[in-house]
Amino acid sequence: MKVRPFSRVSATPGAPHGAQAGGLTGTLIGALPVALGLVAVVVLSEPGLSTTLRLALDGVLTMIWCLYLGQLIATALRRDPDAKGAMLLVDLAAVIVPLAALVATLATGADLGGPSLACGVWVLKLLRDSTAFRLVARVLANEAHNLIGVMSLFGIVLFIAALLAYAVERDAQPQTFGSIPQAMWWAIVTLSTTGYGDAVPQSFIGRILAGVVMMSGIGVFALWAGILATGFAEEVRRRDFVNNWQLVSAVPLFRQLGSAELVGIVRALKPRDLPAGAVVCRKGDAGDQMFFIVEGRVSVAATGAPVELGPGAFFGEMALISGAPRTATVTAASALTLLTLHAQDFQILLTNNPEIAETIRKTALQRGGAEPL
Amino acid sequence: MKVRPFSRVSATPGAPHGAQAGGLTGTLIGALPVALGLVAVVVLSEPGLSTTLRLALDGVLTMIWCLYLGQLIATALRRDPDAKGAMLLVDLAAVIVPLAALVATLATGADLGGPSLACGVWVLKLLRDSTAFRLVARVLANEAHNLIGVMSLFGIVLFIAALLAYAVERDAQPQTFGSIPQAMWWAIVTLSTTGYGDAVPQSFIGRILAGVVMMSGIGVFALWAGILATGFAEEVRRRDFVNNWQLVSAVPLFRQLGSAELVGIVRALKPRDLPAGAVVCRKGDAGDQMFFIVEGRVSVAATGAPVELGPGAFFGEMALISGAPRTATVTAASALTLLTLHAQDFQILLTNNPEIAETIRKTALQRGGAEPL
Amino acid sequence: MKVRPFSRVSATPGAPHGAQAGGLTGTLIGALPVALGLVAVVVLSEPGLSTTLRLALDGVLTMIWCLYLGQLIATALRRDPDAKGAMLLVDLAAVIVPLAALVATLATGADLGGPSLACGVWVLKLLRDSTAFRLVARVLANEAHNLIGVMSLFGIVLFIAALLAYAVERDAQPQTFGSIPQAMWWAIVTLSTTGYGDAVPQSFIGRILAGVVMMSGIGVFALWAGILATGFAEEVRRRDFVNNWQLVSAVPLFRQLGSAELVGIVRALKPRDLPAGAVVCRKGDAGDQMFFIVEGRVSVAATGAPVELGPGAFFGEMALISGAPRTATVTAASALTLLTLHAQDFQILLTNNPEIAETIRKTALQRGGAEPL
Amino acid sequence: MKVRPFSRVSATPGAPHGAQAGGLTGTLIGALPVALGLVAVVVLSEPGLSTTLRLALDGVLTMIWCLYLGQLIATALRRDPDAKGAMLLVDLAAVIVPLAALVATLATGADLGGPSLACGVWVLKLLRDSTAFRLVARVLANEAHNLIGVMSLFGIVLFIAALLAYAVERDAQPQTFGSIPQAMWWAIVTLSTTGYGDAVPQSFIGRILAGVVMMSGIGVFALWAGILATGFAEEVRRRDFVNNWQLVSAVPLFRQLGSAELVGIVRALKPRDLPAGAVVCRKGDAGDQMFFIVEGRVSVAATGAPVELGPGAFFGEMALISGAPRTATVTAASALTLLTLHAQDFQILLTNNPEIAETIRKTALQRGGAEPL
Repeated sequence: MKVRPFSRVSATPGAPHGAQAGGLTGTLIGALPVALGLVAVVVLSEPGLSTTLRLALDGVLTMIWCLYLGQLIATALRRDPDAKGAMLLVDLAAVIVPLAALVATLATGADLGGPSLACGVWVLKLLRDSTAFRLVARVLANEAHNLIGVMSLFGIVLFIAALLAYAVERDAQPQTFGSIPQAMWWAIVTLSTTGYGDAVPQSFIGRILAGVVMMSGIGVFALWAGILATGFAEEVRRRDFVNNWQLVSAVPLFRQLGSAELVGIVRALKPRDLPAGAVVCRKGDAGDQMFFIVEGRVSVAATGAPVELGPGAFFGEMALISGAPRTATVTAASALTLLTLHAQDFQILLTNNPEIAETIRKTALQRGGAEPL
Repeated sequence: MKVRPFSRVSATPGAPHGAQAGGLTGTLIGALPVALGLVAVVVLSEPGLSTTLRLALDGVLTMIWCLYLGQLIATALRRDPDAKGAMLLVDLAAVIVPLAALVATLATGADLGGPSLACGVWVLKLLRDSTAFRLVARVLANEAHNLIGVMSLFGIVLFIAALLAYAVERDAQPQTFGSIPQAMWWAIVTLSTTGYGDAVPQSFIGRILAGVVMMSGIGVFALWAGILATGFAEEVRRRDFVNNWQLVSAVPLFRQLGSAELVGIVRALKPRDLPAGAVVCRKGDAGDQMFFIVEGRVSVAATGAPVELGPGAFFGEMALISGAPRTATVTAASALTLLTLHAQDFQILLTNNPEIAETIRKTALQRGGAEPL
Repeated sequence: MKVRPFSRVSATPGAPHGAQAGGLTGTLIGALPVALGLVAVVVLSEPGLSTTLRLALDGVLTMIWCLYLGQLIATALRRDPDAKGAMLLVDLAAVIVPLAALVATLATGADLGGPSLACGVWVLKLLRDSTAFRLVARVLANEAHNLIGVMSLFGIVLFIAALLAYAVERDAQPQTFGSIPQAMWWAIVTLSTTGYGDAVPQSFIGRILAGVVMMSGIGVFALWAGILATGFAEEVRRRDFVNNWQLVSAVPLFRQLGSAELVGIVRALKPRDLPAGAVVCRKGDAGDQMFFIVEGRVSVAATGAPVELGPGAFFGEMALISGAPRTATVTAASALTLLTLHAQDFQILLTNNPEIAETIRKTALQRGGAEPL
Repeated sequence: MKVRPFSRVSATPGAPHGAQAGGLTGTLIGALPVALGLVAVVVLSEPGLSTTLRLALDGVLTMIWCLYLGQLIATALRRDPDAKGAMLLVDLAAVIVPLAALVATLATGADLGGPSLACGVWVLKLLRDSTAFRLVARVLANEAHNLIGVMSLFGIVLFIAALLAYAVERDAQPQTFGSIPQAMWWAIVTLSTTGYGDAVPQSFIGRILAGVVMMSGIGVFALWAGILATGFAEEVRRRDFVNNWQLVSAVPLFRQLGSAELVGIVRALKPRDLPAGAVVCRKGDAGDQMFFIVEGRVSVAATGAPVELGPGAFFGEMALISGAPRTATVTAASALTLLTLHAQDFQILLTNNPEIAETIRKTALQRGGAEPL
């Protein structure tokens, strides 16, 4: 069975990578009205605002609301099958919540934050479009079992701490430890090592209890942090693997590699996006990595006239082979997507793949005569 | 010697996994009276409560206490050999502690938290039944040596900090630094970076000392957190290995694997439980993993009529081989236990096991003609 | 070249492990006068103490001081060549510092903490004898380069934060931000996320600055914690490797292993010390590890009369091979040192070492007829 | 293709390592005027300073400013092509900012921190020359994508927390929660678990919100810390690999190694710099590592006259082979650069490289006759 990991990319070279960039621009444009709206909400919360400014900002909010209403109607008319539940829900809430707040304000006369505050719901649009949020949401889903376990343990520790603090401190400080819910407030402020200082145990036993709670808090914190940090690192590694897997296909050199070897290379490579004009490496610098061009072109300026290299080419291998400093300055001639390979993984690659070593050697020799990199 | 890792599971396929789920339901049912009792304890701690409500809540506590007394007597009559020390102790305490508190209150007239507060001991039942607690307890036992070392170091640092703070600040602030125990309170609040603000050094030297203590606190915190987080991650990995090892036996494809290869696969696979009706993967999505069915059935909806797949079947491999998006939507036809394999580990599996690659290729070809996944 | 990793241990089986235990007992006995002395120092710091108690505690301190003086003289007379610089220095300080404080008090009449407070220097004896401290000290030495780098970065960030806070807040709050040293106090309290609350920026810009400082603090914290936690984990792994390497030599089964294979096993094994009478595994439990006896004897109680196993024997392999629950309860017949091997590493061991697999199979078969474990 | 990783170092043995040390000394000399200047700035910020001292310190600042002006002019005259953008910018700012502050003070009469405070900009010189800063800057650049993601998520969570806190608490506490920016101050102080205590929610719902914010804060903290700590560890590992790769070339023994094997050794070795006279290992100690000399000489003192070993020699292998304690004390006869190899990696090295094992065995035998190490 021949695995062809490249077929996806042959059709649309670098598509997911490009799509990601396109999505970023789209996100930024979509974020503009949200940002404007949220700034208006923040400014409107200031008490001593002039009526004129207040009216103007209300106008801005109304305009953005109308924009969102229009978008929602457009989506509904298109009957877009791609519109998913959660996405649609946020769009719906963005229109309905401010409207409901307006109606409630007009009906009751009470000022429940008012319609302007209700526009804060638009922040959910930002959250929905944030790739980091989606990443973190996946981590939370993957680690749900462990997180819920640690959370329930946290809840039990919190309850025990509050119960004991209430038993110990209630007579001395009825104002702050007079009931278990009050003691629980102290417990969570202490367990998270926030320490506002509004509730502090006074008795000797209460203080020893507080010390134990602080140490437990660090422990719960550590478990919580360990689960999240590990899960996040793994999820990032997976995402990078899938992305790199596709980028690698644009480099002909790697097509000779076997599947297992390829997995190693894909893990070792780091993608790098550079704008046109950026310097990739500078003549005279020490070199600890080599580069493979996925998309775009670079300009190599050594002693002679600059040479251009395009997609699939590689450079920077001379510094890794000879240990000499870079012999040329390389700049991005256009928007550039590179894969970089560190010295350490370069050595492993060469050892395990004599054909690739041969290809690189030939290229290096050829260049060595004219334009060593 | 032929290792037969599957024999345990052949007899009771997925037993530990199912048992875990059953244990969860059992735990939730057992947790109900505890939760009710603890809510009553919390509410009863509120000072301004009407007598009626107070009597009602006392009644609830009495009923739960009777229930626990009944359970304890039943256990004693059964002479259950499985009843272990720690478990029985908690059940005993749940009955005796409130009773003792009631007797003490009646005898002395003093209100030592009263019998209602003593019912807070029921939280230990929650703690005992929490799988997270058992996991954390195992981590603490495994790492006891290092944790005790760091704790003792923490104690020594605490003492030194308190001694120096007392020497430096006692004349300026006799109220808060007037004795070493008082200075120790400041030291622990600072070392854990809680910082209530009730004791703050005023002198120049005292503040430099405080800065050093804060930095040491971060260091102790780091060691503490590092030990706990690493130990927890290792314990979870071990538990998952044993669980996966049993689940893998339900997938015929993996029976061909050698022992070492199997260890690699068992480590790479992630179990996933889904309720009936849940979507496993959606047509058109990019695919970065394939699935193996351990228990339950899935319904595969591509262009034609839905096809069902049962235990031992696998799907989702097409997206990994061809790089094309998912060609079908797969939903759980019943409660489902899956094993998922990520792209990266899929490549390694295929390279090292030509027979498995052949089986998967044949299945993929067969499907490619009719219902590619 | 034949590497003989066992020669050291053949001479003194389990010596370093036993020595460690002996050292622990010795440490505890040596810690007794220190603990007594420090408790006396703490109690003496309380202001409202009766003269009798004060005299009694002073007497205790004097006696301990005399003890230390005697020990010091004994060491000097022996001309012990093993007495190292740092160790001797602590012993010297333990005698000289309290004496100097007494002389200073008598000479000047001023109460510089008094001689009793100076006895707090004895805590250094505890610190010197703490294995955790030595471990942490080694980590600090190993990572000195990185720690100093992060510390200097921390210092620079602290200075910048203080400078900006002083520039922004000094007019509004001359009491708390009136000079750069004062602002630096705020900066360190904020950067370590302690947050006493005695100095809080009031201006808008000051608060944005504070937010940035808090986030930087978390970053510095993260670097600090990452370096320490990683270095500690590595140092513990190294110590365990050297310890396990020696314990492994007591198990004849492992003598057949090649050097590389041995390194893998030594890394996978976890030592466990148990007191006489402790239960190693219980009949009916699920088994995820097997055991090798290094020192001591176990009693195996299945259906028949209990069987004893001694050093070099192994048990618990049946549960890993057949997947069935434990068929016997094993208790420690004496103080016991075990090596445990987890299921996962057991599979790798068997695959790579057919001879060991054969030995284990034969033992298992033999037992299978009579006393399966 | 023959990879020659040593060619770089053959020309300039240990160059980068030495250069680093030279750079350190250079940095310290360059840091002197900065340190002096910053101390002057700090002291000048104290309100109650005598006019004489103030004038003297102003004089110091003026002198340092003149020095920097001179350096800048010298750089400009040399037209140094190595002067890079960021470096030059800092040198420019060091001259222009204080000058501008002086002009502004003279022109407006207003005291905007004054020229002396503006000299605080010199701290940027320290930051620019700090290797830790460059390391951290590289980590930030590498992880920019993830860090920005987590930061934006942090911003969104902050906004949501502030919005809700404002909605809940504004009526009860108009002083501290009267507008969204004010509530945002509370939110950041709580999310970073700093907890000044100047703004504390009073209502029940507000306190539950605060608890959730604290837990989220720990989560954001964990992600932030995880990304930074992992990225830092990786960057350090890469830097060490490149440094070690060059040091290894000075040890003839390793020239026989294949490329893949060499990568393993380079990863396992730890460089260690020692001053002349330092003790490398002590007779009678347990030995868990062996040493390779890169630069400098050691003096080996066993029973006979001391023997000297120079670059390329190795020692300490006896303790690893025989398991016996060190048989000689080794001290640095000159400034020394060593590579240390831990027991565990020593075993792997021997197993995989019979020729190296043979060389080490012969050396050990030879020494065993006279001066075993």
